[in-house]
Amino acid sequence: MRNIKIILEYDGSSYYGMQKQPNKVTIQSEIERAIFEVTGENVDANYSGRTDAGVSAYGQVISFKIESDIKIEKICLALNAHLKNSIVVKSAQEVDLDFHPRYNAKGKKYMYVINNSQYGSAIFRRTEYHVEKRLDVKEMKKAIKYFEGTHDFKAFRASGTSNKDSVRTINHTDIKLDGDRIYFTFEGNGFLYNMVRIIVGTLIDVGLARIKPEDIPKIIESKDRKKAGRTAPAHGLYMVEVYY
Amino acid sequence: MRNIKIILEYDGSSYYGMQKQPNKVTIQSEIERAIFEVTGENVDANYSGRTDAGVSAYGQVISFKIESDIKIEKICLALNAHLKNSIVVKSAQEVDLDFHPRYNAKGKKYMYVINNSQYGSAIFRRTEYHVEKRLDVKEMKKAIKYFEGTHDFKAFRASGTSNKDSVRTINHTDIKLDGDRIYFTFEGNGFLYNMVRIIVGTLIDVGLARIKPEDIPKIIESKDRKKAGRTAPAHGLYMVEVYY
Repeated sequence: MRNIKIILEYDGSSYYGMQKQPNKVTIQSEIERAIFEVTGENVDANYSGRTDAGVSAYGQVISFKIESDIKIEKICLALNAHLKNSIVVKSAQEVDLDFHPRYNAKGKKYMYVINNSQYGSAIFRRTEYHVEKRLDVKEMKKAIKYFEGTHDFKAFRASGTSNKDSVRTINHTDIKLDGDRIYFTFEGNGFLYNMVRIIVGTLIDVGLARIKPEDIPKIIESKDRKKAGRTAPAHGLYMVEVYY
Repeated sequence: MRNIKIILEYDGSSYYGMQKQPNKVTIQSEIERAIFEVTGENVDANYSGRTDAGVSAYGQVISFKIESDIKIEKICLALNAHLKNSIVVKSAQEVDLDFHPRYNAKGKKYMYVINNSQYGSAIFRRTEYHVEKRLDVKEMKKAIKYFEGTHDFKAFRASGTSNKDSVRTINHTDIKLDGDRIYFTFEGNGFLYNMVRIIVGTLIDVGLARIKPEDIPKIIESKDRKKAGRTAPAHGLYMVEVYY
């Protein structure tokens, strides 16, 4: 038995999210189908973390166990030959049998992209969230820094999520401007369900002067989802990298 | 009567090109429909140049004549409200009645985008042309310079095009690398049908060492379409700007 780790880029707009679901085409179901077509083996793929429908990834990590002796350097080509080009296997390596992409992950990096021009982009409308009203990026840059560190992020987790531990550490945040585009990045040891999208929704409220940057600590401390902003839409979010 | 000039961004993958055609949804038909919905007037829109199905634009220029007294600063918003978000009107201004976006154009800028990574991008597959084999960018940079200047570009025009004047001037060319992406730009006084796509197809042959950079002048002089490379696909091409 061999354990294979692959890194995937995918366009989330074409799939019902990462996780397998009955009668839906998901990233996991497509990857498992491609593995079957290449090796004839039915596998249960493990992944570093779920992404919702519409969320894309530059560097999702998946692992699966096969008996096949297919050469490791042929795996990308073979899997890509059986995948639509909205999923691309970028690299493959053989790893220890006990490697698990979620349990072994030390951290993750997410990016969120906003187009803040008045009318948005026709060409890139599927890969960024259009916010028409002018955002105050200086204020958002102040606000995002309050999310760094170890906090109970319960206020920034989708309501109705089960009552697990909601303490996470965000090591690094950044906001970059490129013309009308705003790129948010978040690196941390893990993220709760919808956490990045709710943080970005809250930063949008800061950019619109509905919330002051100095109010962020209070919102975090409240542990109350209703105190944070809306959940920013899925199509602006990217899982960029998983650290091991 | 007023003459209105608008600048458009559009995603060409959603339309059968620029020009009106019976029973097809084109950029022109969509714009004329939106103008009718805003003003109640049936117009014949003029444009700076055709783009084929699949070709996108950051800065296509269109003009149309209306009687309506709609305020010029309301036109973008009003037209965008009646357009799908794969077409965006970015600006509008009132111009002289004799202004024509094609006849008055002094020059145009086109861009072509190649993704030269081994497996291409899942996320940006619709907005760039994936070339799997490694291209020698240094050789392409030498080759592109031979296209600058005034030449008879007959060899770089779609065969079967009517026998009009095929002399054009390219003022400036450029190739920029950004990771695995190669951005080609061309500025000139005008471009023949498929000219940029055939030049890029020829430059790809240079990048694959099938043609030497020093052979470009001979290919131009031959005026023979068969001596040039293939026509690169539409979805890598962008009309960037029209100069007046």
